[in-house]
Amino acid sequence: MTTANTARLLITCADRSGIVQAVSGFLYHQGANITALDQYATEAQGGTYFMRVEFEVNQLAARRDSLSQAFADTVAGRYDMIWQLTAVSDIKKVGILVSKYDHAMLELLWRHARGLLPCEITHVVSNHEDLRDAVEGFGIPFTVIKVTKDTKAEAEAQIHEIMAGNDLLVLARYMQILSSDFVEKWPMKVINIHHSFLPAFVGADPYRQAYDKGVKLIGATAHYVTAELDQGPIIEQDVERVSHRYSVADLRELGEDVERNVLARAVRWHLEDRVIVHGNKTIVFD
Amino acid sequence: MTTANTARLLITCADRSGIVQAVSGFLYHQGANITALDQYATEAQGGTYFMRVEFEVNQLAARRDSLSQAFADTVAGRYDMIWQLTAVSDIKKVGILVSKYDHAMLELLWRHARGLLPCEITHVVSNHEDLRDAVEGFGIPFTVIKVTKDTKAEAEAQIHEIMAGNDLLVLARYMQILSSDFVEKWPMKVINIHHSFLPAFVGADPYRQAYDKGVKLIGATAHYVTAELDQGPIIEQDVERVSHRYSVADLRELGEDVERNVLARAVRWHLEDRVIVHGNKTIVFD
Amino acid sequence: MTTANTARLLITCADRSGIVQAVSGFLYHQGANITALDQYATEAQGGTYFMRVEFEVNQLAARRDSLSQAFADTVAGRYDMIWQLTAVSDIKKVGILVSKYDHAMLELLWRHARGLLPCEITHVVSNHEDLRDAVEGFGIPFTVIKVTKDTKAEAEAQIHEIMAGNDLLVLARYMQILSSDFVEKWPMKVINIHHSFLPAFVGADPYRQAYDKGVKLIGATAHYVTAELDQGPIIEQDVERVSHRYSVADLRELGEDVERNVLARAVRWHLEDRVIVHGNKTIVFD
Amino acid sequence: MTTANTARLLITCADRSGIVQAVSGFLYHQGANITALDQYATEAQGGTYFMRVEFEVNQLAARRDSLSQAFADTVAGRYDMIWQLTAVSDIKKVGILVSKYDHAMLELLWRHARGLLPCEITHVVSNHEDLRDAVEGFGIPFTVIKVTKDTKAEAEAQIHEIMAGNDLLVLARYMQILSSDFVEKWPMKVINIHHSFLPAFVGADPYRQAYDKGVKLIGATAHYVTAELDQGPIIEQDVERVSHRYSVADLRELGEDVERNVLARAVRWHLEDRVIVHGNKTIVFD
Repeated sequence: MTTANTARLLITCADRSGIVQAVSGFLYHQGANITALDQYATEAQGGTYFMRVEFEVNQLAARRDSLSQAFADTVAGRYDMIWQLTAVSDIKKVGILVSKYDHAMLELLWRHARGLLPCEITHVVSNHEDLRDAVEGFGIPFTVIKVTKDTKAEAEAQIHEIMAGNDLLVLARYMQILSSDFVEKWPMKVINIHHSFLPAFVGADPYRQAYDKGVKLIGATAHYVTAELDQGPIIEQDVERVSHRYSVADLRELGEDVERNVLARAVRWHLEDRVIVHGNKTIVFD
Repeated sequence: MTTANTARLLITCADRSGIVQAVSGFLYHQGANITALDQYATEAQGGTYFMRVEFEVNQLAARRDSLSQAFADTVAGRYDMIWQLTAVSDIKKVGILVSKYDHAMLELLWRHARGLLPCEITHVVSNHEDLRDAVEGFGIPFTVIKVTKDTKAEAEAQIHEIMAGNDLLVLARYMQILSSDFVEKWPMKVINIHHSFLPAFVGADPYRQAYDKGVKLIGATAHYVTAELDQGPIIEQDVERVSHRYSVADLRELGEDVERNVLARAVRWHLEDRVIVHGNKTIVFD
Repeated sequence: MTTANTARLLITCADRSGIVQAVSGFLYHQGANITALDQYATEAQGGTYFMRVEFEVNQLAARRDSLSQAFADTVAGRYDMIWQLTAVSDIKKVGILVSKYDHAMLELLWRHARGLLPCEITHVVSNHEDLRDAVEGFGIPFTVIKVTKDTKAEAEAQIHEIMAGNDLLVLARYMQILSSDFVEKWPMKVINIHHSFLPAFVGADPYRQAYDKGVKLIGATAHYVTAELDQGPIIEQDVERVSHRYSVADLRELGEDVERNVLARAVRWHLEDRVIVHGNKTIVFD
Repeated sequence: MTTANTARLLITCADRSGIVQAVSGFLYHQGANITALDQYATEAQGGTYFMRVEFEVNQLAARRDSLSQAFADTVAGRYDMIWQLTAVSDIKKVGILVSKYDHAMLELLWRHARGLLPCEITHVVSNHEDLRDAVEGFGIPFTVIKVTKDTKAEAEAQIHEIMAGNDLLVLARYMQILSSDFVEKWPMKVINIHHSFLPAFVGADPYRQAYDKGVKLIGATAHYVTAELDQGPIIEQDVERVSHRYSVADLRELGEDVERNVLARAVRWHLEDRVIVHGNKTIVFD
């Protein structure tokens, strides 16, 4: 349960003795009350250390800058930490990119409308008109930006401009491949849902690939987008059991249920500051 | 529930109207009682048709040959069927190949000892001495056949000879790649357990690959062995959820539980004549 | 894949030899092509036999009555069958009853809008105003019928009248207990979603009960409604893993995801004529 | 990864500010390195606080008593903690009680033999002779103590004596109900595997009950034994999907797989000091 005075620290640093003591001591002396604490270190010694602390502190809004400064000056400096302090009351802004399939996007809009996604959904951009009514029915602005081979750079520039100011972009089955130029401007700020259990079935039409291969489970993978197609850090995956009786259409229908749940979980964890990226992998404090 | 008078028909043919009527009519006129019937056709029309019928008939042992002949002469001929008639009382003979990991093999021996695998386990062959006591403790012959690059052909000849007469070979984490010469002598009669959710992580050390990739689920795949490594028809797959906290050793430990269950299910389905191979895929009537 | 010429036979009778032959022979002689066939018998002998056959026949609409009559006169009579013949092109009419929680109802409306529920949703009745906009946004009539202790009989009479002509009523978290008078007018035609893994946590506030008990999985159960509260034949169940960290509100939130999926599956199976009730249990040919 | 210098603190106390700081500060000043830390509080304020810390400290064996004393004198006293300090190198002693079903016991013996259960299995006691060979084959003493209505008190006295010195008793399908007198001598030190998803199907023959009820999932529950039958704190549960096709025997066979996995996980978590009992519920830091 979070309040207007809830904040979170996400920390990455070299693993050394005394980090918990230093962080918790700092918070104690600031009058903060720790409500959740997770940590993980890659190895017993010489590894990398990760920490997520959620805490309550009176008058967070007024004291936030001084709290950050004090943490930087004392603990973070001493341990050479990569860190961020977030206030739960800072509502993150999220933009969505979509094409024609609506299931993944609708799941996000629906959960958001029910208060289950702590964010503001600012805008939906699509390369097709199809989903305008569905999006505008939720009171969310919808813009079509067509993409052709020739206009791709220009289209991406438009998307970048329209999405400026967002904290996260979600590709809810956006069927265009974003250029590495674009992706590099949004580092670990673009989440994609891939309709297979990666690394199986990278690339186009994974349900057809799954059908041809005769797999007995199909899945979906939510991952951060990097310049390398379908290779970014995996946040969440899930599968469902299928049989020889499933046609490609059946696989797609069942798979869409998996996709929307996996994407919704990944986005939520990101919004709750539960995900730390380390190399090409994620630490998810769920 | 099967008895000494239980038999099964497994049928593959071009999909046409009237097959169920023809097969069930044949059985009815033979005085047989159908106890289970499954069918599947790849498409509504023009596809391939698959059927599994389990039935009871008095004095099966005495009448079996004439039953087969009659079926061949009437239904099978008319529909140009690929088919087999098996009597449940014909206990299938199974040989196991293993290296040093014992978990997959022990699960088979243990289930067999408890009456849960309808077969005779005739022999375990390994390229290492390690598991002799474990195997012989179950009263099953154990033979070591060492394999080196130079002796591979000879070793396989020995294995082929020692395993002659078996209906099925199970590779219960046998860490040698069988030659295509060997495999072709045992068509759809060798089941392997691969320690990943194929087609992800083909080849060596899949748990290391899974760790490096940061997947959130690990799995195992039981498949028939064909000349192409890890590409044969998949019989069964399953996964378990993991997190960033799992080391390679943890993945392996959890994965071994998945492996043994997946392999045991696949072997059992094969023994119960539930699996039909069609191209590179399986129909599993479970 | 079904067409305008697809029909289904659902059959229950005493288990005897020759039923498959009789049914498939009948269909063959009518020129029908069997596209799916499932059967089940409660015991090898002396039990009850259940069958579901899906078939294609030319000019189904024109021939339907004569087909029914012929089946009644020949096979059904001989085997003393309880049976029904349904044409897939007869779209079933479904009414929904709901209170304030929207998740289960929205899942149905949403799937229906996407073509995933083969039915017509004719009406939503609620004892509260809250969901009017949500329902009417789908173009479905919405009526409020208040229920108090004193007006219950009258309210049920109104519901019965407004829902007359429907083939199925779905209680999508309708928080009123229907009287046995009402239920008896809709035998095996009312499906309820109960927010626990029945028979655990019968009755009110099951998430609170689950929390107090400290269970490690929570579930949902879709069942036909009978006069005895929460005791009707179970159609489908599912669970999700939880931990001590889940508050009652967390259990409810996760549970709502389970509820909507379980209910959607149960309703779909009912609409596809996959469910046969036998005593207090269901046969589900899925 | 634990070493001879790994220790664990399990703590329960009233939730107050500063506990993490106090515990981690204490460990830091003792030169200990925290390798894992989990915490949970029942509510934001006024609730109960639970903590599990795993840490490494040089020369643990020599310093253990002074460490305990120092913790008691400083942190534990100040916060009025219920706590225990365990050294991973103190191998816990486990006794097993069993009747005729072998699956749950064999899973424990097998995992133990493979190094997957960190304990010493000291003795297996049964009320039947049947499993003597299976147990003695693992080199573990086996004693039969018959139980009749008249000799129950005496039998329990014998069991109590033979099991004296063990840290944990595991009822691996022991088909006798232990008296409350016995249970009170082993508070939260007896783990039972119940063959249903509790609280469904309390009491005798739960697979028969599940069959009669027509449930679509069957499960198993590992729980601490208290004086009230099948009502003790639940440690772990799991389920598997079943259908109308499962006979009582099929349910039992599949259920036994669930039972052995659920019991093995619960015992392991107990041995790794991951379970804290609070009222009638467990906190499991897994």
